[in-house]
Amino acid sequence: EQGTARVRPVFERKIPAGDDRERLVCGTCGFIVYDNPRIIVGAVCTWEDRVLLARRAIEPRRGYWTVPAGFMELRETTEEGAAREVREETGARVRIVDLLALYNLTHISQVHLIYRAEMMDPHHAPGQESLETALVAWSDIPWDDLAYPTVSWALRDHAQRIGLSNFAPAGRPNGSP
Amino acid sequence: EQGTARVRPVFERKIPAGDDRERLVCGTCGFIVYDNPRIIVGAVCTWEDRVLLARRAIEPRRGYWTVPAGFMELRETTEEGAAREVREETGARVRIVDLLALYNLTHISQVHLIYRAEMMDPHHAPGQESLETALVAWSDIPWDDLAYPTVSWALRDHAQRIGLSNFAPAGRPNGSP
Ligand SMILES: [Zn+2]
Ligand SMILES: [Zn+2]
Repeated sequence: EQGTARVRPVFERKIPAGDDRERLVCGTCGFIVYDNPRIIVGAVCTWEDRVLLARRAIEPRRGYWTVPAGFMELRETTEEGAAREVREETGARVRIVDLLALYNLTHISQVHLIYRAEMMDPHHAPGQESLETALVAWSDIPWDDLAYPTVSWALRDHAQRIGLSNFAPAGRPNGSP
Repeated sequence: EQGTARVRPVFERKIPAGDDRERLVCGTCGFIVYDNPRIIVGAVCTWEDRVLLARRAIEPRRGYWTVPAGFMELRETTEEGAAREVREETGARVRIVDLLALYNLTHISQVHLIYRAEMMDPHHAPGQESLETALVAWSDIPWDDLAYPTVSWALRDHAQRIGLSNFAPAGRPNGSP
């Protein structure tokens, strides 16, 4: 029926009037997409001396392990977003402690804000985006089966700051790809 | 002529299939706008004991004073974005030192990342978005003519950390609106 006809928009890169760089502009209606860097919020969550990991149930990197993290949503703080992602992916309830790291991933225009968080109790259970969840000792971290380099950065940055407080957030390791 | 006809897109808020919250969907072509929080990058820049301010040439808050800051762009780091905004608005060349503050402004879905920066030389000059620029002593800061609450937060957070290094970034002051 006519009301549900859909035209897939075709975007072209051009510099809109009054702007100074190329934007994605809809070739059909002229709508300008101000495509901005995205914020990923997440947390390294601990219970006693263990860290909370989740095995991804979705692509990309299905089957690999990660710390809970995902896209920040509108109208939430970065801390609220990190706690929400933890809850959605691992079922855990946490108290956000402080900002562990800020990683710039310029090739995909993402800024990762990874917090330290303490679990309120040892409960965890996989959400829809996870196959399983686990509280893992440092010696049992599956380094070869982590989903992304950022996960290993966050775990190492966490390990280096146990017992510390009031520190500058870590950045990308020197020489990281 | 036909090729330049433009239809202003009308967006409706609805939950796309497979999603769990409302998004802005184009009523004409079905394009989903994933409207994410925006990152503002900026810096409190110093030369000796003075801070660099710019008086805004554009709305909103034309004529009021600010520290240089603006929307982070694609494919730059947060530090590069802060230095770029400084250069664009004040003509100054700076070295980014560390992350002074992370302010969540949930009512407008913005995350402000404000760095400390050292000017490489005392040169500054207004860019297109500034009426004038100034290196201002603490006692001369125009508190009643600052453009935004975030500017006064950043200046006060800066003053409290002179001589300190390796600290956690400041957050919003308690009880701020
Ligand atoms: Zn369109
Ligand atoms: Zn459209």
